[in-house]
Amino acid sequence: MTTPKADYQTSMVFDSLWRGAHVATMKGGKYSSIENAAIGVVDGHIAWIGEAADLPHYQTHGEHDLAGGWVTPGLVDCHTHLVFGGNRAGEFEQRLNGVSYQEIAQQGGGIASSVRATRDASEDDLVISAKRRLQSLMQDGVTTVEIKSGYGLSLESELKMLRVAARLEQELSVNVKLTCLAAHAMPPEYTDKDEYIDYLCETVLPTVAELGMADAVDAFCEGIAFSTEQVARYFNTAESLGLSVKIHAEQLSSLGGTRMASSFKALSADHIEFIEEADVKAMADSGTVAVLLLGAFFTLKETQRPPIALLRQYGVPMAIATDANPGTSPVLSLRLMMNMACTLFALTPEETLAGATIYAAKALGMTDTHGSLEVGKVADFICWDVESPGELSYWLGGNLIKERIYFGNKSHGNKGYGNTFRQ
Amino acid sequence: MTTPKADYQTSMVFDSLWRGAHVATMKGGKYSSIENAAIGVVDGHIAWIGEAADLPHYQTHGEHDLAGGWVTPGLVDCHTHLVFGGNRAGEFEQRLNGVSYQEIAQQGGGIASSVRATRDASEDDLVISAKRRLQSLMQDGVTTVEIKSGYGLSLESELKMLRVAARLEQELSVNVKLTCLAAHAMPPEYTDKDEYIDYLCETVLPTVAELGMADAVDAFCEGIAFSTEQVARYFNTAESLGLSVKIHAEQLSSLGGTRMASSFKALSADHIEFIEEADVKAMADSGTVAVLLLGAFFTLKETQRPPIALLRQYGVPMAIATDANPGTSPVLSLRLMMNMACTLFALTPEETLAGATIYAAKALGMTDTHGSLEVGKVADFICWDVESPGELSYWLGGNLIKERIYFGNKSHGNKGYGNTFRQ
Ligand SMILES: [Zn+2]
Ligand SMILES: [Zn+2]
Repeated sequence: MTTPKADYQTSMVFDSLWRGAHVATMKGGKYSSIENAAIGVVDGHIAWIGEAADLPHYQTHGEHDLAGGWVTPGLVDCHTHLVFGGNRAGEFEQRLNGVSYQEIAQQGGGIASSVRATRDASEDDLVISAKRRLQSLMQDGVTTVEIKSGYGLSLESELKMLRVAARLEQELSVNVKLTCLAAHAMPPEYTDKDEYIDYLCETVLPTVAELGMADAVDAFCEGIAFSTEQVARYFNTAESLGLSVKIHAEQLSSLGGTRMASSFKALSADHIEFIEEADVKAMADSGTVAVLLLGAFFTLKETQRPPIALLRQYGVPMAIATDANPGTSPVLSLRLMMNMACTLFALTPEETLAGATIYAAKALGMTDTHGSLEVGKVADFICWDVESPGELSYWLGGNLIKERIYFGNKSHGNKGYGNTFRQ
Repeated sequence: MTTPKADYQTSMVFDSLWRGAHVATMKGGKYSSIENAAIGVVDGHIAWIGEAADLPHYQTHGEHDLAGGWVTPGLVDCHTHLVFGGNRAGEFEQRLNGVSYQEIAQQGGGIASSVRATRDASEDDLVISAKRRLQSLMQDGVTTVEIKSGYGLSLESELKMLRVAARLEQELSVNVKLTCLAAHAMPPEYTDKDEYIDYLCETVLPTVAELGMADAVDAFCEGIAFSTEQVARYFNTAESLGLSVKIHAEQLSSLGGTRMASSFKALSADHIEFIEEADVKAMADSGTVAVLLLGAFFTLKETQRPPIALLRQYGVPMAIATDANPGTSPVLSLRLMMNMACTLFALTPEETLAGATIYAAKALGMTDTHGSLEVGKVADFICWDVESPGELSYWLGGNLIKERIYFGNKSHGNKGYGNTFRQ
């Protein structure tokens, strides 16, 4: 208690007060920095934030000196496929030893092998493997993660994946958003894409919605996956069930998926290397976030870049995500994606940090509560051992975290996992 | 004690025995795997290694079940500039905001700013900042690291950098090899490159050698740095002082530095994007290791790749390193470089692991003691939470370490540093 009892009525009362660092609040998608800042927390939310010198009279149950560095919002990874059985390191190695994609497909490799392994895995085993991967993301600064289904491709196994993702939030100090990506690929039981879409619209989406097992619905719109018309039908069902939509679109070609998704006011269109000006305009009109996925761009050695200048010109918010998945993006670091967005797409460090915080939260429909450090928002933040927020995009790899605060409390994020570096 | 006293005379006696995992020994530059292996350690060295089923009668003071995963030699990062003052995140951010290299140079940026900051920093401050970076490398699996001077460019400040590097070995559980890179750039006091080389040959190298402060000598041979003739003169002095040499060569152009260095039986030629067949042949003849530096290749958006097929054809061993430095390669993960070597240079995961272990040790002249897991070598090894050694190159980022064993003992590697994730 720092003020005398008599002042109680006119004092703010915090559960905890954090000071001793600068803050990049990311308000409005800019650093919006506060030097020598203080953050007062009540009930896991920010009750006061500003320069420490401007603090009002206050009382606090805990006061923490962060002892230097920069605070940012906890990072938000808005596009992952973290839950899957097996991994595809064997294929990765085969390909580098000269085995062709075709031969690997003939062996039952590719996404089909992830579907098989995910269906075969028990829910507990899927929790164990996904938890390790999520802990890596968390140790890199992530406090909110989106996790998609999409390796089940049947009602039962899609629900299993979503239950696994939901359990991760119970076991770890992290916010998990659930996305149903049942329209990811064709399951082996179906040969007709329209029939599979029928099944999703008639059975899978209604059940997922009824059970409350998804915050949003996603689809892969591409020649090798589903057509714009098929995805539109699936989105119509999602919309009628009150679910927001997202889309994997224009990654390898231009099919119009992004524009179609914008007509559904999609939360985000992801990948979008091949979008054109009309698509960008549609996204701007619908408030759809452009999610840039550097891991797949890098791993697949793509050369077509999204039209960053147009996205800036039309004011389309850009987010950055890992797309963590076993095939095209085995990525377990969101900061690495921020570096790649600078190096490969020429984003600025301020844009990449906005893309991993406020605009990633927007891609998940969470800007009321997350993504920036403002009064009323949840107190999820990271104190980094850096001299400027630009360092978060500058370093490749490395452990820059001084302190991780989740819902107003210090948290390594890893409950009950006793590994050497994983705490 | 697992055997009765009577057997003492015919039993092997270990300080510790490690079992319960597979081992990629990396003997001969291949995985040379042992499934269900055991490693017996005496005095920090490997006394026995093989299939656990073949263990002879033994007694041991400690027995450790690694409980699955794969063991590899501790990673060796054979090319770093880990000791420096300041960082260049500000320049990184300026460039992405449209400030030209020229303007940055006019502001005193570039390597000159690192030289200034390194000269101005106290030895203690340099230890603190380099230690954090080294801890990141160690948490990613590194047990041996080479550290170069080269931001001092005067006798006093080069020695300061080398003392800092030597202190890191005292404070952390890691082997440090010291390389004097006084011929890295021109110091502000000199305008004539030959005069600076004279100073290095007459004053700096003899003193460094006399004080025993370097294991090897390195130079940057390039149009923007020193000519082949200047470096040859510097190498002549090094040779006469009994010091091995290494070279930064053929990164941006072909000057013949690699061939010249090979004539000095250089331990390694590093970068070498622009080498040609005659250079490769010279390296093969001299036993010089090709050190591939993916961080600079990626960060500088280079397009000219080293001739990997020729290096394979002539049997030149390839190593992978971070080149950790504040300007062109702010890299704090050797595993990430292994992934980039696969993705950008099409190396196989087996080649990248050899490049981060046995051939990296060769680039440091340490193959008698390090780089592979064989009887007589030092017991530095990592147990990884993976199902195949290929996973080490497959994942981008993430924490895959189950156990880190340094000189036969479990070691997080970080003595007396109490940070959240840094232990
Ligand atoms: Zn995806
Ligand atoms: Zn270098």
